[in-house]
Amino acid sequence: MTSLDRPIPVAVLGATGAVGQTFVRLLANHPWFALADVAASERSAGKAYAEAARWIAGEMPDEVASLPVVACDPREVSAPIVFSALDSSVAGDVEQAFARAGRLVLTNARNHRMDPDVPLVIAEVNPGHLPLLEVQRLRRKWRGGIVANGNCAAIVITMALAPLERAFGIERVFVATLQAVSGAGYPGVPTLDILGNVIPYISGGEEEKIEREAPKMLGALRDGVIEPAPLRISAQVHRVPVEHGHTASMAIALGRRVSPDEVRETLAGWRSGIAGRALPSAPREPLVLLDERDRPQPRRDVDRGAGMTVSIGRVRPDPIGDVRMVACGHNTVRGAAGASILNAELLVADGWLPDDYAT
Amino acid sequence: MTSLDRPIPVAVLGATGAVGQTFVRLLANHPWFALADVAASERSAGKAYAEAARWIAGEMPDEVASLPVVACDPREVSAPIVFSALDSSVAGDVEQAFARAGRLVLTNARNHRMDPDVPLVIAEVNPGHLPLLEVQRLRRKWRGGIVANGNCAAIVITMALAPLERAFGIERVFVATLQAVSGAGYPGVPTLDILGNVIPYISGGEEEKIEREAPKMLGALRDGVIEPAPLRISAQVHRVPVEHGHTASMAIALGRRVSPDEVRETLAGWRSGIAGRALPSAPREPLVLLDERDRPQPRRDVDRGAGMTVSIGRVRPDPIGDVRMVACGHNTVRGAAGASILNAELLVADGWLPDDYAT
Amino acid sequence: MTSLDRPIPVAVLGATGAVGQTFVRLLANHPWFALADVAASERSAGKAYAEAARWIAGEMPDEVASLPVVACDPREVSAPIVFSALDSSVAGDVEQAFARAGRLVLTNARNHRMDPDVPLVIAEVNPGHLPLLEVQRLRRKWRGGIVANGNCAAIVITMALAPLERAFGIERVFVATLQAVSGAGYPGVPTLDILGNVIPYISGGEEEKIEREAPKMLGALRDGVIEPAPLRISAQVHRVPVEHGHTASMAIALGRRVSPDEVRETLAGWRSGIAGRALPSAPREPLVLLDERDRPQPRRDVDRGAGMTVSIGRVRPDPIGDVRMVACGHNTVRGAAGASILNAELLVADGWLPDDYAT
Amino acid sequence: MTSLDRPIPVAVLGATGAVGQTFVRLLANHPWFALADVAASERSAGKAYAEAARWIAGEMPDEVASLPVVACDPREVSAPIVFSALDSSVAGDVEQAFARAGRLVLTNARNHRMDPDVPLVIAEVNPGHLPLLEVQRLRRKWRGGIVANGNCAAIVITMALAPLERAFGIERVFVATLQAVSGAGYPGVPTLDILGNVIPYISGGEEEKIEREAPKMLGALRDGVIEPAPLRISAQVHRVPVEHGHTASMAIALGRRVSPDEVRETLAGWRSGIAGRALPSAPREPLVLLDERDRPQPRRDVDRGAGMTVSIGRVRPDPIGDVRMVACGHNTVRGAAGASILNAELLVADGWLPDDYAT
Repeated sequence: MTSLDRPIPVAVLGATGAVGQTFVRLLANHPWFALADVAASERSAGKAYAEAARWIAGEMPDEVASLPVVACDPREVSAPIVFSALDSSVAGDVEQAFARAGRLVLTNARNHRMDPDVPLVIAEVNPGHLPLLEVQRLRRKWRGGIVANGNCAAIVITMALAPLERAFGIERVFVATLQAVSGAGYPGVPTLDILGNVIPYISGGEEEKIEREAPKMLGALRDGVIEPAPLRISAQVHRVPVEHGHTASMAIALGRRVSPDEVRETLAGWRSGIAGRALPSAPREPLVLLDERDRPQPRRDVDRGAGMTVSIGRVRPDPIGDVRMVACGHNTVRGAAGASILNAELLVADGWLPDDYAT
Repeated sequence: MTSLDRPIPVAVLGATGAVGQTFVRLLANHPWFALADVAASERSAGKAYAEAARWIAGEMPDEVASLPVVACDPREVSAPIVFSALDSSVAGDVEQAFARAGRLVLTNARNHRMDPDVPLVIAEVNPGHLPLLEVQRLRRKWRGGIVANGNCAAIVITMALAPLERAFGIERVFVATLQAVSGAGYPGVPTLDILGNVIPYISGGEEEKIEREAPKMLGALRDGVIEPAPLRISAQVHRVPVEHGHTASMAIALGRRVSPDEVRETLAGWRSGIAGRALPSAPREPLVLLDERDRPQPRRDVDRGAGMTVSIGRVRPDPIGDVRMVACGHNTVRGAAGASILNAELLVADGWLPDDYAT
Repeated sequence: MTSLDRPIPVAVLGATGAVGQTFVRLLANHPWFALADVAASERSAGKAYAEAARWIAGEMPDEVASLPVVACDPREVSAPIVFSALDSSVAGDVEQAFARAGRLVLTNARNHRMDPDVPLVIAEVNPGHLPLLEVQRLRRKWRGGIVANGNCAAIVITMALAPLERAFGIERVFVATLQAVSGAGYPGVPTLDILGNVIPYISGGEEEKIEREAPKMLGALRDGVIEPAPLRISAQVHRVPVEHGHTASMAIALGRRVSPDEVRETLAGWRSGIAGRALPSAPREPLVLLDERDRPQPRRDVDRGAGMTVSIGRVRPDPIGDVRMVACGHNTVRGAAGASILNAELLVADGWLPDDYAT
Repeated sequence: MTSLDRPIPVAVLGATGAVGQTFVRLLANHPWFALADVAASERSAGKAYAEAARWIAGEMPDEVASLPVVACDPREVSAPIVFSALDSSVAGDVEQAFARAGRLVLTNARNHRMDPDVPLVIAEVNPGHLPLLEVQRLRRKWRGGIVANGNCAAIVITMALAPLERAFGIERVFVATLQAVSGAGYPGVPTLDILGNVIPYISGGEEEKIEREAPKMLGALRDGVIEPAPLRISAQVHRVPVEHGHTASMAIALGRRVSPDEVRETLAGWRSGIAGRALPSAPREPLVLLDERDRPQPRRDVDRGAGMTVSIGRVRPDPIGDVRMVACGHNTVRGAAGASILNAELLVADGWLPDDYAT
């Protein structure tokens, strides 16, 4: 599918928050989708979007400013595709209600990520997990469904690991992250906590998310069940005074002894799972390998591929395992809203839109 | 030894640079030492210190402002104890010349750290390596000698590992560091490189230093030879926009299976190698264990113990090895000038001052 | 008065917030005062202080950690001296209740600053305004009373202007401020708003406060009325990514033509209104004149005089008026808690403590 | 002129530095100009550009990477239009040599800005000064010539003042700037000087530049002489930890009493001096008026109009003069390279290219 007769209406749940705003920004002028509904908490419902959102994401697209904010209720939202930027404290029930009402829910919340029948998908890495949606629909008697994104750091890490997992198998990964403040939303991290400082902790079980989600995303769908990849991950997370861009330094033991040069070739030669598909949000290069010894850097590399490319550098031998490397990606684009939108494009292209919505 | 009839004259080589200034600041009002000579490059020699140094370390001590800067030549410097803050490009020869001339050289430069006959000492960790100085004097026919500090990150890491190495043995350590800009000296890191950014690289072989120096410092002196501890280290370093304070996140596999509680008790109950010695620069607590889940943090913990205490937190199980933890210490104090001064105090207290200098 | 038989109990209202914590920190080990009560909102009342306060001001003094937090009600607080770090949304009534109940209230809130019978005092600048308290007590039939601090930026600016006002008269001042984030309290300014950024606005009428409070503080008390100084001020405020320390750049037209050298001499030779009084929190030098062309700077000068000294630099001719200069002071110490405590010391020394409290 | 048969070759002098890199970046894919020569110091000459420049400006354009760096000598450079990003220590002679050799030199250096026969031009503000070039050619017997840019802060300030000067006349302006670190070039400001800090000083006579250049740019060309506008300016400059974007807060006394609403209308209704001209680098809106009370902000507004638009906000009454307002613009684009390129476009469109270069 390369063109649409008319754009598909989409909605954003939690549209006023930081990730919600990124959705709104990325959906402006989208070739396939038209932002039809912005939904948020009862407190915002009824206001114009421009009034309800304290906009922090650059220039607000004109067409959204006057959209009325509606409640996060399927009766208020008609769009068949729904992007969820809801906080995990409310996402669970709301997302299920939308799925039950026949909508395709693309969620950034953690609530359903590890549900056995919810695909946890990076379009380039494991598009083959999407048929799990069929299992979900059958089991839950839903016409719609939920497809989840990974945690923002988990996505960056998983994309960097995917080519190595495919080529060599991965035994274990030690990863330390340096994560941007935009990952905490808005108002998020108080300046007094992070200016000229580093915080070796991120609330909400960030480390556990990385350790559990990456194996699921790198796993295989067999007989309606995701078998996680057998790698073990040890993650240590840090918040740093960076606006956008999560950096992850990894030390990796592979399934067999592999030289850094082989790793480099494997990364450079990786063919993504959607290579050749003309999806509007797919970056030309999902992974880019940098040679400079001091890259990647979030401020300088985060916007590569309109924020959808993960940059990798410092591929070098590891004195204990096999190889060390550093990956960096845009946490609110590649690690959240952009990844969801790309998943939605893939779902549409593959015909997963509910039957009663004729494209 | 708890008092001196008169203070011992000391000199600082490279006194105008960033580490040199930290020496000058820490030596002001020192109870045992009197800063007698400030030495720097030929370009500065002859100027008053206040004129030669672009002072960045707070208020310049009054008594040093008018000191004339002399060349880094033993004939220009009479002090028996010499602290070297020289750049590694010149430190090697200059330090040897001072040692040959009968001075005790306490060096922060990397040049001699891995020399088999040069003690690489953290006073609290391996004071027992100091007798290697005897080997050095015999072999090199020096009356003075060189005692080295480790790299600033290596010191913080080694202090945190020392109690575990002693108690359980350590097999391997994955460490990621987040290092302050003051570690690069002055002018050091350009603002345009690090503001709102992270650089996953530090020049000068920082990672190799950590990987090689820690085992030497944790090793044992036997028959005039340092046997390095058998642990293997994999280090990944990052520069972050922090003024002072290196943070190190570690994932550790110990010699036997140990619970985080045992690790915590071991760290809290550690008895430093100079416990009970009344050395002026020794912090009351070389290690402090923090319970808050988001500590240590450089800006909030770096000055603990006047910058000489290493703060440890986030002790928790590691899904691959045994335990993870985060250590933070002041890079120019604990990791450089302060460590050198404490070493000098220990040398004086143990009677290592050259014979011709009667204390 | 130079000693007290026993310390005077004092209380802090709003003790858990950012300014409240600064009070708590500065009152630890105070030679005259003993922190007896920490009061905060109903939500915190009943908890131990260590539990109620998210402490951000370094190490929490041991003796305060276990103090029970009480409500901001004079029946719950027995101390005769009460420091108010309350938010202006609640400060008005609460402070009046305490004054009515016979307590001396030293307030940082804006509510009563411009009341005609409330002294707005910087101890070094206008100690002569304190007798206005007598008018206040008579008029309001209070045994206690309210003495206010100026706004944090207004205090720094007024201290720098005071010597010039006294010596030459001031006609008009253009001032631009660069204000630290700690001025907004905690959590205060979101990192996403200020990292690598500048905000040319501060909420709450910051500019008007500067423009109105400085003339009152520089005015004269005559016949029970404060006559404001006739200077006119035009203020423009900016938030900058600085932790502590407000910087104010001023262009000043004086009452007569004056050279920068005269200004410098006047500043250097200024005798504060409490010179010679032995008040514990009074800095040795309330103003310090710096010669370096690039000073004062908040990070490097903010802690001078334990945060109570205002640093002035860049005194130079103004192409339109007479003189330009830059002042910098610690906003939460000199501009808030420290100023209040110094005012309280002056009140005690001058015998303003209510009669029924025998010192 | 709206199209060219073939692109005009242009050169950049000082092409490896920070401003030079901005030129290179802005000239990539320029519709009229083709970057033919990159010139730099003798040290770089002979290397490929990618090797000589430590590139800090994002992705280096492919076509420039392999360009050989040549010396800053007219014999080495054939392009008829030469952009100078040279340091002022060398710019004077070099630029004259190029002008003498028949080239149009568009310079960012301060050396010739105040020369009576050198046009100091902002294309939108004073395009009518360009005919001064005729005087310059006659007097100096040059076929080429020098056209200067103002100082980066002076350009932003002058653009914001221009509509008011034209409409009402300006008597005096008090301006405080908050300037980005990129204004100091690369490596420029050391991180240890500016992280979490503010420096109330910029070297090189920044304040005098603003005070002298703005009146020249706002002046009138009459009989071959620039009569500066009669406004007086008092400037105070500050360096702040911002990457790009100079902010200027101004308090303005106008030639007659004017309300902020009139000022707002005048700014919004301003017709630039090149309105209607189709110059490739001219922003659609040279000035934008923002209503939000906390704007403009460098990080959020600096890239408006591809960095060529100056954003203005906080237009409000001044308690002393008439009006206060805040302007913000991109210092290396609007205040340097972009302004030069736009000037060159205007020169080409107006037929100022030397005769022997047939367009």
